[in-house]
Amino acid sequence: MASSATQLIAEHQPGSALAQAFYTDPDIYQRELELFVLPHWLCVGHLSQIPNPGDYFLFEIAGESIIVQRREGGEIGALANVCRHRGSRVCYEARGNAKTLVCPYHGWSYSLDGKLRSARHTKPGFDKSRFELKAVHCRVVQGLILVCLAEEALETNSLEAMAEKVIGPYNWADAKVAHRAAWTLAANWKLGVENYLECFHCGPAHPAYAKLHSNQQPPWKNEKLRSDMHSAAQAMGIEILNEDRWASAAPAGEEAMLCSRAAMYPDAVTGSQDGRPVAPLMGQFTAYDGGATFFHIGPTSYFLAYPDYGVIYRFSPRSLQETEMEVIWLVRGDAVEGADYELDRLVWLWETTSAEDKLIIEKNQAGVNSRFYQPGPYTQVESNTERFVEWVLAAIA
Amino acid sequence: MASSATQLIAEHQPGSALAQAFYTDPDIYQRELELFVLPHWLCVGHLSQIPNPGDYFLFEIAGESIIVQRREGGEIGALANVCRHRGSRVCYEARGNAKTLVCPYHGWSYSLDGKLRSARHTKPGFDKSRFELKAVHCRVVQGLILVCLAEEALETNSLEAMAEKVIGPYNWADAKVAHRAAWTLAANWKLGVENYLECFHCGPAHPAYAKLHSNQQPPWKNEKLRSDMHSAAQAMGIEILNEDRWASAAPAGEEAMLCSRAAMYPDAVTGSQDGRPVAPLMGQFTAYDGGATFFHIGPTSYFLAYPDYGVIYRFSPRSLQETEMEVIWLVRGDAVEGADYELDRLVWLWETTSAEDKLIIEKNQAGVNSRFYQPGPYTQVESNTERFVEWVLAAIA
Amino acid sequence: MASSATQLIAEHQPGSALAQAFYTDPDIYQRELELFVLPHWLCVGHLSQIPNPGDYFLFEIAGESIIVQRREGGEIGALANVCRHRGSRVCYEARGNAKTLVCPYHGWSYSLDGKLRSARHTKPGFDKSRFELKAVHCRVVQGLILVCLAEEALETNSLEAMAEKVIGPYNWADAKVAHRAAWTLAANWKLGVENYLECFHCGPAHPAYAKLHSNQQPPWKNEKLRSDMHSAAQAMGIEILNEDRWASAAPAGEEAMLCSRAAMYPDAVTGSQDGRPVAPLMGQFTAYDGGATFFHIGPTSYFLAYPDYGVIYRFSPRSLQETEMEVIWLVRGDAVEGADYELDRLVWLWETTSAEDKLIIEKNQAGVNSRFYQPGPYTQVESNTERFVEWVLAAIA
Repeated sequence: MASSATQLIAEHQPGSALAQAFYTDPDIYQRELELFVLPHWLCVGHLSQIPNPGDYFLFEIAGESIIVQRREGGEIGALANVCRHRGSRVCYEARGNAKTLVCPYHGWSYSLDGKLRSARHTKPGFDKSRFELKAVHCRVVQGLILVCLAEEALETNSLEAMAEKVIGPYNWADAKVAHRAAWTLAANWKLGVENYLECFHCGPAHPAYAKLHSNQQPPWKNEKLRSDMHSAAQAMGIEILNEDRWASAAPAGEEAMLCSRAAMYPDAVTGSQDGRPVAPLMGQFTAYDGGATFFHIGPTSYFLAYPDYGVIYRFSPRSLQETEMEVIWLVRGDAVEGADYELDRLVWLWETTSAEDKLIIEKNQAGVNSRFYQPGPYTQVESNTERFVEWVLAAIA
Repeated sequence: MASSATQLIAEHQPGSALAQAFYTDPDIYQRELELFVLPHWLCVGHLSQIPNPGDYFLFEIAGESIIVQRREGGEIGALANVCRHRGSRVCYEARGNAKTLVCPYHGWSYSLDGKLRSARHTKPGFDKSRFELKAVHCRVVQGLILVCLAEEALETNSLEAMAEKVIGPYNWADAKVAHRAAWTLAANWKLGVENYLECFHCGPAHPAYAKLHSNQQPPWKNEKLRSDMHSAAQAMGIEILNEDRWASAAPAGEEAMLCSRAAMYPDAVTGSQDGRPVAPLMGQFTAYDGGATFFHIGPTSYFLAYPDYGVIYRFSPRSLQETEMEVIWLVRGDAVEGADYELDRLVWLWETTSAEDKLIIEKNQAGVNSRFYQPGPYTQVESNTERFVEWVLAAIA
Repeated sequence: MASSATQLIAEHQPGSALAQAFYTDPDIYQRELELFVLPHWLCVGHLSQIPNPGDYFLFEIAGESIIVQRREGGEIGALANVCRHRGSRVCYEARGNAKTLVCPYHGWSYSLDGKLRSARHTKPGFDKSRFELKAVHCRVVQGLILVCLAEEALETNSLEAMAEKVIGPYNWADAKVAHRAAWTLAANWKLGVENYLECFHCGPAHPAYAKLHSNQQPPWKNEKLRSDMHSAAQAMGIEILNEDRWASAAPAGEEAMLCSRAAMYPDAVTGSQDGRPVAPLMGQFTAYDGGATFFHIGPTSYFLAYPDYGVIYRFSPRSLQETEMEVIWLVRGDAVEGADYELDRLVWLWETTSAEDKLIIEKNQAGVNSRFYQPGPYTQVESNTERFVEWVLAAIA
């Protein structure tokens, strides 16, 4: 099958969508997981989800379950949720608090750093130190928890420096999660990401979004709006640079990151049903700058910062044509629901937009599965989607 | 796998049912689709379902979606429901009316004949004429809409001539659809067709049908009834010949067709719960002739004409062991529900019979899946089923 | 694939759990079915389920359906539920009574011993004697009905002699079925059996069970209790030997069997919520001996006898990671529900314990599916599980 993937990649026409097999071949899917998705850093949530020692939640991707936890000293860690005895899940619940990780099957007991503390009735010669819960790479960047399931993780030096300049002004490090929602897409994970990476579809498919955000038009149509946004931010002493170290532009051995700013239309200041504010201003923002900041980390984790709230957008492959799309809403850490923000108003736009995306992504997969499917040409406003598919191809070649 | 299919075909015992692998092997299923099902004409519905320009419905088979439509000039056409940009379905809804086909994803817009009319932000050198929606062969025969998904379609000259003589007297060209119903069979498509092609099972499995139709008995037991039926039709000036150009009897390069007349038992004149009429007489019929006309087009489309109503019976493979069985009821074009016919009475017999068929077909598949299954001998009254399986084997050899 | 199984077996580390592929590879699953599960005797139920001639029930395993029946002379038989005509299931219902087995599809009619009695419209030369329903090995041992789907069945001489000594004192031959329940496990069948074969998990996972049964502790911790149990049984003239002819200890060509006695804790006399009796004493028991008798027949059929009731525990593979776990409760043949026992009290412990098992078995499968799974060492109290996996490996090598 490796040779068939190689041939398919060789046959790819630059500038065109991918051939059908990239969305229907189980071997290509496995190659993508091993060579592309899992070697990258994946955002699994936010620090505020596990404030106290022992707090944990499970992150699931492609059949794997990872315990993401706050340890005794307050540091954040990640462990494979697989008992070293006979392989049972150690944590059954999606979230909880445990000072010791006790496997419910035979009672093997681990400390929060994964060390095996007790196991009954083992045979002579048993060496506890050889049976720690397996560690998973874990790093916290501006309040965002990232994990990497591969043996070797990409460096995050450039990423961390850039994240400070992009996310720092919004102070997500002190934000809190206000809401989470997930959609299961009957589609290959790449179709979810390809969709996220262009706003060419926003006009036809997302009327509410398109009414607010000028990036539904090509960049050359809204230069004035972006210039105004830039000035408004500067007036508050905020400088957020458009920067692109993403896809093939990532430094060698480093995780990829991109920041891209979009201007709101004049009547809107944030992503809400009426364009009006929905939560307290965050970080250094003392007013609305009329802009929204998009940034990407690696190939599956996407972020959007408005002055008053943030959105984490994650794609987790489940199987060849099943993908979980999760959305997490962030607000200022001290914001109180009911007093400082109404949840319904806060989540309306991205609940609406995500439901629309589920439909169009699934209809895309249905058509791609057809014998009549033939990859067509990307337009001038789908360049990030185009870069993404080239990035995938290079990685699995 | 091709060689394994070849060997299985070589091992087939004429006169016996097919070996298990023909119902369980994904490669044989794919061969059947490519070499047998899709190269034949498939009846997808009736002209009356799309009376006005822009009217369309979607036909789905084996994961494919076809837009069956009436175009501006009134002609009937069929297009692959796959956008030429990135492959999305263009029509999402099962039926509707659209004067222009606009892809909901990025707004590519096609005229009803499939020509690309507009696409925004394409790169320089983009040539619209290279991106038409792909055409699917489509033909209307006596009001029945047929499509063929293969590149080359079989000729329909003989078919059309024969259809005029068989269906013409019932004037289905001016009929209308009164009802549609579908059953999903947990069975290979061939088991559905094999069941349809013999009435040996009608006695044990379809008591209501068997009470009305003398073809539940071998032909040599009801010669008198058929002779009476023939005379009654002749008395109205109607001549419907039993004719057989089906399976291996089809002229070379031509679509197969068969017509076979069956006599009702003396107390019955049509297929209804009590054998009494359920709708106005159709076409040239001025009285009941005590007969029913079965005809087949290709391997998946079957038809039954009573003097007062008609039935279209279609088998669409969904996957190796999943098949959609659809039934469409036709009545005279000017018949009015409530005044001229009651829907419950009209559909009773074939709703009942189809539900019974679903059960026995699925129980057949369950047994065929067993390690204890061994193909048994066809009897004297299963000759069309026997011809059908030989036809399949010849096609995929 | 055969060679890959061979290699996996060669790489197995004695003393460790099995590698992932043994739970995820469809070819290994097929080998296990053919070479291990189906060649063994499977307990399918109890004599009392089919008291009268013509009574039958269907037993289903791995897609097969077997008619288990009482014939005219009272003897018990088993037939493949596959018509010899075109392969339909002959019996549709899970249980019933039929003096003749008539296929609902085309009416082929068989006598209870499987002989074809009538078939209509067969072609000349048809020989009925060549179309009997296929026989399945069937044997009754102490009231338990065993079947074997392989061509050649293992001998049961040793098994029958041992069963008389183990089950005879409980007189299960005259027992009756009081209740049946089934759980579908999203797990490979071996994980169900591995779990059943050790009580190491009883402490952590089955608090109600562990409160009653001393085998939740290693045997060296409850010698006194077992000695008391032995004396109490002897005082009634009952001698039930611990005997082990199971797994590799089975005589060559003979079915495997094991008997192992466990002592109840002092406050309990049977497996109930409060440890108090739930049904009339069975067989030779005139009092409670403070013990419970476990016995195994082959690799998928397990039994547990308390003085007042019995439990049959069966594992039937459905597919690679789907298994049916069925529990059947037996009481004395003349016991009357409501008068002699309350169903809720009777079934409470094993309903509770089985629901707990479903959860832990499924969480085990989930972890075994992980890339982080690495087989760990069996402890001193998992020896039967260890013997079981070695037995499987030897059989499929």
